[in-house]
Amino acid sequence: MDVRVRGDLSEVFDVQHFRENSETAVAILHKHLSDQSIRGLELVDPAVLTRAARALMTDESERIADFDEGRLAGILELYVRTGIAVHSPGSMGRQFSGVVPLGGVVDFVSSVVNQPSAFYEAGQLPNVAERIMAEELNRFIGWAPGSFDMVTTSGGSLANLTALLAARNRAFPDFWEQGGPGATAAGRPAVAVGEDVHYSVARAAGVLGIGEAQLVRLPLDRERRICPRRAERALAEAEERGLRVFCVVASAGSTPVGAFDPLDELADLAHRRGAWLHVDGAHGASLLVSDRLRPKLRGIEKADSLTWDAHKMMFVPAPCTLLFYRDRAHGAAAFRQHASYVFDEEPDPYTALDSGDRTLECTKRPMIMALWVLWSLYGRALFARKIERLCRTTALAHRILLEQPDFEVLHRPEANILCFRHHPAGPAGRAPADPREVHRLQVAIRDRIKHEGTFFLSKVDIDGVAALRMVLMNHQTTSEHVRLLLQAIRRAAQDVQADPGGPR
Amino acid sequence: MDVRVRGDLSEVFDVQHFRENSETAVAILHKHLSDQSIRGLELVDPAVLTRAARALMTDESERIADFDEGRLAGILELYVRTGIAVHSPGSMGRQFSGVVPLGGVVDFVSSVVNQPSAFYEAGQLPNVAERIMAEELNRFIGWAPGSFDMVTTSGGSLANLTALLAARNRAFPDFWEQGGPGATAAGRPAVAVGEDVHYSVARAAGVLGIGEAQLVRLPLDRERRICPRRAERALAEAEERGLRVFCVVASAGSTPVGAFDPLDELADLAHRRGAWLHVDGAHGASLLVSDRLRPKLRGIEKADSLTWDAHKMMFVPAPCTLLFYRDRAHGAAAFRQHASYVFDEEPDPYTALDSGDRTLECTKRPMIMALWVLWSLYGRALFARKIERLCRTTALAHRILLEQPDFEVLHRPEANILCFRHHPAGPAGRAPADPREVHRLQVAIRDRIKHEGTFFLSKVDIDGVAALRMVLMNHQTTSEHVRLLLQAIRRAAQDVQADPGGPR
Repeated sequence: MDVRVRGDLSEVFDVQHFRENSETAVAILHKHLSDQSIRGLELVDPAVLTRAARALMTDESERIADFDEGRLAGILELYVRTGIAVHSPGSMGRQFSGVVPLGGVVDFVSSVVNQPSAFYEAGQLPNVAERIMAEELNRFIGWAPGSFDMVTTSGGSLANLTALLAARNRAFPDFWEQGGPGATAAGRPAVAVGEDVHYSVARAAGVLGIGEAQLVRLPLDRERRICPRRAERALAEAEERGLRVFCVVASAGSTPVGAFDPLDELADLAHRRGAWLHVDGAHGASLLVSDRLRPKLRGIEKADSLTWDAHKMMFVPAPCTLLFYRDRAHGAAAFRQHASYVFDEEPDPYTALDSGDRTLECTKRPMIMALWVLWSLYGRALFARKIERLCRTTALAHRILLEQPDFEVLHRPEANILCFRHHPAGPAGRAPADPREVHRLQVAIRDRIKHEGTFFLSKVDIDGVAALRMVLMNHQTTSEHVRLLLQAIRRAAQDVQADPGGPR
Repeated sequence: MDVRVRGDLSEVFDVQHFRENSETAVAILHKHLSDQSIRGLELVDPAVLTRAARALMTDESERIADFDEGRLAGILELYVRTGIAVHSPGSMGRQFSGVVPLGGVVDFVSSVVNQPSAFYEAGQLPNVAERIMAEELNRFIGWAPGSFDMVTTSGGSLANLTALLAARNRAFPDFWEQGGPGATAAGRPAVAVGEDVHYSVARAAGVLGIGEAQLVRLPLDRERRICPRRAERALAEAEERGLRVFCVVASAGSTPVGAFDPLDELADLAHRRGAWLHVDGAHGASLLVSDRLRPKLRGIEKADSLTWDAHKMMFVPAPCTLLFYRDRAHGAAAFRQHASYVFDEEPDPYTALDSGDRTLECTKRPMIMALWVLWSLYGRALFARKIERLCRTTALAHRILLEQPDFEVLHRPEANILCFRHHPAGPAGRAPADPREVHRLQVAIRDRIKHEGTFFLSKVDIDGVAALRMVLMNHQTTSEHVRLLLQAIRRAAQDVQADPGGPR
């Protein structure tokens, strides 16, 4: 061997060193997960955190610095401490959560073995696991085996973008090669979406050369679901304005309130007009695995494509998104490419599983592995039980809120998202009539709660006015925690009103 | 507490259980990394692997299955065994590699603490680390502090897509809102790329509504670099054909052979025409951290945007891509959005670090953490030393190949990629004149080598004829391994010629 490996480089790659680092990480994570106190977020000023982070960095530039175990522990402890306390029952703000711990362990293996999964040869088991999970989950969708398709994507936004691209290419076969047609006799390409559609869908129109001006907004009913009757009218009007709506996007459930659009009716509506129905089920598709909750997605088998985030309601590390197509051929038509260094010209049993020609990513994390292993070891009941519990607790929270005269509930929760506003004087009392004042108070309450660090909530604008948004992702959150939260909100409102300029 | 957590769900989330699972994984990874034998890939028929995977899955559907430690170990062992042996010196086929093991450990922490990083509040340290790494790496690019920008993306393909989107929106301010303009007086939007550009760039033209037909291919010189003189002519001709080239894409280095386009000249050329210069440095940008290799990217400071994959030559778990913009404002203009549940209307010191409005992803892995921790603990020398070693070994391999009469070398390697062909009878001997025969033989050799499982090589078409492609990513690969590989290739060629229909 004429090239010697220098001692320092081999030390970095030393296996015993890896083992010790792993033990350090496991000990810190163990301690972190053991803390079951009610916590939200320890928000740190970025300038302060930057100084703390910089202080942990080596100054050595010319040679590989000697390893400092204490420095590693310091970094990992800082990392763990400054996150949202997703494993605490106080975390109620976002659609991601404390992962099933074994899912994190499997993801660890993925990080070390480094098997990008867009090509079979680079990640054999991940590719097989993708096919298996596609079949397993399709049992709850109901498409004919062998006719549908599924690819994984790095998050729901990419899945929505990819689905709209496939729909665009089906409706306008020259778009890929020639670019956007502009205004033609057949009408300008357009996409119809509910008023509460996720921002990634609206953004996709801008990205794909369709244009945000060609988004047709479909009106919602009182429960913030797309109203099929009024949607039909909106589509007819769009056509009269010279738009050709090639895709209708429904939500299951929507990001703001978790509403489930009527898929059955919307599929019929879209298909009557020759349009594609895409269902953004990033949050709610997981309800399909529960016998009790599956009816929320009635008609899902009529969808042309479906976005399903396993990192939301399947509780695996983010991101892990599954994009389903009812018709295999449609998914394959999203892209048209040739690259000799990755795509083999003569398909064989191995390359038949490649998905690099069907996703925006080339190097892609084997994200399916955590989901498949949890599914394999615990079965679907793990997911069904946890989701059912979250929805039940949210229904309880709804009932509790209805009993409070100083809270306004904005909808009946269909899943595990609940939006409400606090009116300190009660709605019939001296509540401010000015919606701007209501808006400012909810934002101020949310910020103060966040800075206190006991609970973590989000906020959303409903009809232009801010509301507090609770997303129950932790099965250890109970109605008792909800009551504690309401007390914290009342205190926060008092503090805000006593000292409007005080710490937020 | 009126809702009780069922025993089985709490068992799944039990912290001691997590610790035991982690120890199982660490033991399996330890054993895996300790195996320093020369290995490539154990290729398994997908049908066989599917049966093996299915056999490891529980049948239980109605209740949460009891945990089976042996089943977990079986799955993880199967996972580890069926990957490309990236930690072995026999792995020479792809631009991903055995990660620095500590990087895998940090990624493990990310998987468990689950801090999506597109918003500061959800991942405080990852966001701070992104800013720090942007500043650290910019020392080797050379832009004015505070004026440039960097966002992380899930892979280089997304970074290329995002950069082209930003360039499109700058050149055509109405494209986002109105969609593609079609053929206008100002010319059709077009993108100029080298003949060897990565497929994700060509694909981006299809995705973004520009159209693959509006790709202007720039000719290469003998070393497969874009030739500025001929490129100038190609751009002028494109203009005469009614195209408006708003972006020129250069590679540093290219995927097929690792060639570095002349950035300095191409930046001048692009800017003279008012076009954006995007540099796809997915593979080669990492050479910037080496004083010795930095000159390969002379002129990088003139680029408008730069794709930099840390999961390639910075040896962190995939994906981890950094997309740099010379001008902050250009990155911000890639998207235009409003979503009240994630974007706060009044920017404050916290939301100032949010990047969700500048990336295609919404929920995004805190991918910077492995890179930042390695950089903090070992310093840049870790990367510089390893990259220099890989390039040096590739130069040695080149010299060895030049000495072999039965091998044709296709270029002088600029980095760690080397392409060549095997001609069993020697180029002056009875080598087949028919390029189709040469092509078929290289493909057959590559497949046979892959199936043998000792070495792992890739192949690429150069001027329409397949070549063998060696990517040296492991610092433990030496010239001795290269000599062993050449022997294996000769044997494979003999076997192929003796039994053309035999096992590939």
